[in-house]
Amino acid sequence: MAMDHAAAEGDHLAAERAAARFDVEAMKVAWAGSRHAVDVADRMARLVASDPVFRKDNRTMLSRKDLFKDTLRKAAHAWKRIVELRLTEEEASLLRQYVDQPGYVDLHWGMFVPAIKGQGTEEQQKKWLPLAYKFQIIGCYAQTELGHGSNVQGLETTATFDPKTDGFVIHSPTLTSSKWWPGGLGKASTHAVVYARLITEGKDYGIHGFIVQLRSLEDHSPLPGVTLGDIGGKFGSGAYNSMDNGVLRFDHVRIPRDQMLMRLSQVTREGKYVNSDVPKQLLYGTMVYVRQSIVADASKALSRAVCIAVRYSAIRKQFGSQDGGPETQVARILMKTVSQLTSGKQPVGTMAYMGKVQHLMQSKCAVKTAEDWLNPAFIQEAFEARALRMAVNCAQNIGQAANQEEGFYERSPDLLESAVAHIQLIIVTKFIEKVQQDIPGHGVKEQLQNLCNVYALYILHKHLGDFLATGCITPKQGALANEQLGKLYAQVRPNAVALVDAFNYTDHYLGSVLGRYDGNVYPALYEEAWKDPLNETVVPEGYHEYLHPLLKQQLKLSRL
Amino acid sequence: MAMDHAAAEGDHLAAERAAARFDVEAMKVAWAGSRHAVDVADRMARLVASDPVFRKDNRTMLSRKDLFKDTLRKAAHAWKRIVELRLTEEEASLLRQYVDQPGYVDLHWGMFVPAIKGQGTEEQQKKWLPLAYKFQIIGCYAQTELGHGSNVQGLETTATFDPKTDGFVIHSPTLTSSKWWPGGLGKASTHAVVYARLITEGKDYGIHGFIVQLRSLEDHSPLPGVTLGDIGGKFGSGAYNSMDNGVLRFDHVRIPRDQMLMRLSQVTREGKYVNSDVPKQLLYGTMVYVRQSIVADASKALSRAVCIAVRYSAIRKQFGSQDGGPETQVARILMKTVSQLTSGKQPVGTMAYMGKVQHLMQSKCAVKTAEDWLNPAFIQEAFEARALRMAVNCAQNIGQAANQEEGFYERSPDLLESAVAHIQLIIVTKFIEKVQQDIPGHGVKEQLQNLCNVYALYILHKHLGDFLATGCITPKQGALANEQLGKLYAQVRPNAVALVDAFNYTDHYLGSVLGRYDGNVYPALYEEAWKDPLNETVVPEGYHEYLHPLLKQQLKLSRL
Repeated sequence: MAMDHAAAEGDHLAAERAAARFDVEAMKVAWAGSRHAVDVADRMARLVASDPVFRKDNRTMLSRKDLFKDTLRKAAHAWKRIVELRLTEEEASLLRQYVDQPGYVDLHWGMFVPAIKGQGTEEQQKKWLPLAYKFQIIGCYAQTELGHGSNVQGLETTATFDPKTDGFVIHSPTLTSSKWWPGGLGKASTHAVVYARLITEGKDYGIHGFIVQLRSLEDHSPLPGVTLGDIGGKFGSGAYNSMDNGVLRFDHVRIPRDQMLMRLSQVTREGKYVNSDVPKQLLYGTMVYVRQSIVADASKALSRAVCIAVRYSAIRKQFGSQDGGPETQVARILMKTVSQLTSGKQPVGTMAYMGKVQHLMQSKCAVKTAEDWLNPAFIQEAFEARALRMAVNCAQNIGQAANQEEGFYERSPDLLESAVAHIQLIIVTKFIEKVQQDIPGHGVKEQLQNLCNVYALYILHKHLGDFLATGCITPKQGALANEQLGKLYAQVRPNAVALVDAFNYTDHYLGSVLGRYDGNVYPALYEEAWKDPLNETVVPEGYHEYLHPLLKQQLKLSRL
Repeated sequence: MAMDHAAAEGDHLAAERAAARFDVEAMKVAWAGSRHAVDVADRMARLVASDPVFRKDNRTMLSRKDLFKDTLRKAAHAWKRIVELRLTEEEASLLRQYVDQPGYVDLHWGMFVPAIKGQGTEEQQKKWLPLAYKFQIIGCYAQTELGHGSNVQGLETTATFDPKTDGFVIHSPTLTSSKWWPGGLGKASTHAVVYARLITEGKDYGIHGFIVQLRSLEDHSPLPGVTLGDIGGKFGSGAYNSMDNGVLRFDHVRIPRDQMLMRLSQVTREGKYVNSDVPKQLLYGTMVYVRQSIVADASKALSRAVCIAVRYSAIRKQFGSQDGGPETQVARILMKTVSQLTSGKQPVGTMAYMGKVQHLMQSKCAVKTAEDWLNPAFIQEAFEARALRMAVNCAQNIGQAANQEEGFYERSPDLLESAVAHIQLIIVTKFIEKVQQDIPGHGVKEQLQNLCNVYALYILHKHLGDFLATGCITPKQGALANEQLGKLYAQVRPNAVALVDAFNYTDHYLGSVLGRYDGNVYPALYEEAWKDPLNETVVPEGYHEYLHPLLKQQLKLSRL
């Protein structure tokens, strides 16, 4: 099972691999689920890796437009290979996975097709699925709106039945009803499953799915009444900028009645709303399926990150074994100070609290009510006792090791936690000192005191294990701290916007549509989107080379 | 103190602001430190925000080359304004901060100048500082190397004294000694403070700083023996891609003896190494100063993020108040199940463990040794008891609220924690079930068992507060779990690389130089860097417009 890597002699991790105490091939099977799964995945991964069209090492250097064109090219090439090699559905899906560049095909296969399968009648499936299977149409899934994410019930787009024409009028009544985020919508899709409020006989029957054609199958231009664009760049060096997440508005667009997905409920010729006996949950089937895929994708992404981190840290460590690592940038000084406590030498600076070792090792927290946790003296002592006791524990554990260096190495996770406790004590101490000074201005000091208490009690709650394990506070006192924290949150909440206003940042400096001072984010978001270079042309670059031949079944196949 | 935002009537956050109970202007003073600090920052922020040259809303859409050129343009324009308006040092520094686009000027003012000030003799300061102050030279700080980050003592670059020529020979003996990451080095700087091992009379005296000219002051081309380039794009939609972080190699480059920074120690004409009586710590002064700036910058970045998050969540919440939020993605069902426990209704599915309520509310963990924590039954019961007791606590607290909705709202942080405890129980349970099955292959099952125990005990340690507060385990048992976790880490460590190999990812799919299978990362990193579009030309686009006039003191000032 050789991979696309150097031979063993050039393997800088060979010693690591030799030290492993298990059968890696068998572990591959355990991870993938079966020998077959390993083999087919391996075959598809190598097919992609060996094909120069699928190179991706230049991806972060491409402009948005070039990246998108590259995505269209890869999608067309992948489809060509799938057809040429007569790949199975399993193989085709894995090949797309290994192309590893998000694009319209993901939504076409992952949401458009499943939506029709799950919510379309047999007749609808017979009509639409063959078109989708052959890529005579490209579909996406238009659910989320500018003002509404996962809250499906809040969607505003309407589909009003018009008995005169025996069809629905699809309409975006507000700016916030603009479809926003659907992948493949911005530039590539010809059709969409659109989710809209079904209105018939003057009554709103809630959210239903409709198949709507968006672009001409001749020249890819948007159909009348349809406004389409890409929503602009996303964070993260191009990782998801290959996808044309889109914006879509309808101005009274008409579709035939039979393009409502009617497996769960129908509208009759007369406009009567009729439920079928199919379980309603099927409507959410596509959503649930995709949410499940997202978890699976997250697992893949995480396993890739772990793979990179483990390999590189093994290399980096071999290379710079004299590197102490950052946590030792505090922990060593802590340990040294602890070891000198018995010598009578008084610790100074941020370590000064350790001089109270006799008291802090045995002190009992005197908090009796939630309000007691507003007393800075109680907070201060709890943090001091926690930091000191953790440091002393660490020092004792290191003392039991064969030698000090080994002890430091073995106990490095504990040392890091001990260092964090020390740093948090410093922050709490400085914060308390600051808010005990005079601070002018109505309510200013009070707000800062609240924030100081929020910080201290939040940290105490988050690291409750430290405080309880070292006996600095009791479980009851921990619960009182959490109760007080909840009360403090309620006091901070009405001041939250004004508190961030006090940073005094201009909109220019902040540079965020979402954080603009006036809060008028939705028109601004909508306006910003159109500035993306991908929106310079309605029909994207690459359409003639990679989309038109695909849709017209004219991809040149070398053999069939 | 109006800002560059809409008038109050267009303020979508006006109600939030009206509800605040403190004086925002006074809080600005508290945050900035003084009235003067608020005013000068405000003045500089507005100066930048109102100048079209400093627009940055198009930044993420620019290609790397255009972004870099834009940075050169902004830097030159900022300098022009600083000179024209005769800004003070404080004002100039704030103006650069509000330009908000990392570039060579940050390193010039933030590291090159301070390094000469801190480590140069009076004579050296007299010679070099005026050149830097007037931008007749542009400087950077070349410390880190390809194989060495913060570990200064590991640097490999050498500066060997040659008594024949009364100078030093600066040399990069290995690939990993290539200077790597210094900002401003890649394309802009004419000079650098280079850190290298000082060798004289055959002896290595460790790391010292040297002023080295890198590029011609006539045409910006690299001097003989100097190889220079940009290290390529960084993560994050252009945020730091405006900076030309660079790579630099020396092939026996000669500099005069008096370009060693000699405040702390000197090399005499004869090659004798002599320490001055200036404290050695000064060598690290620049580093410490910059580390301090990084903390200050992190605080600024965090405050901007908080500003955006608070404003947007206030808007988003107003807008979709019927949104339940994700945590209710589990918590409501938990609460419902708990409320039905007394009704005799047996919970099913992932809630089935709650049926053991009588037992789990009172059970005491039987762990006595660290090894006991390897017993899945003990782990399982501890997680079940923790999840159930947290859910019951939540339900009781909600029951005390005026009404259920209010209770849910007030207790939402606790509900989220309860839901997390439930989900972690499910993962631990499924993991334990899986590793109790037959898994073929030498050592495979054992490794997965180790990983299962690592996961469970890591979560237990991380959320120790939950387990202790609900009395599911004792502090002593918590410490035993942590002890066992350390032992498990030691068992996993030798298998780590082989474990990630078992994901069976090709280098193509992984797409990471750092994670490549053969671990040969440094030559690959070095090679990759040259592919960045910024390296297509040795002298960058924008040099003639924005660097040459700056260096030649020919920026056209409208008035002086």
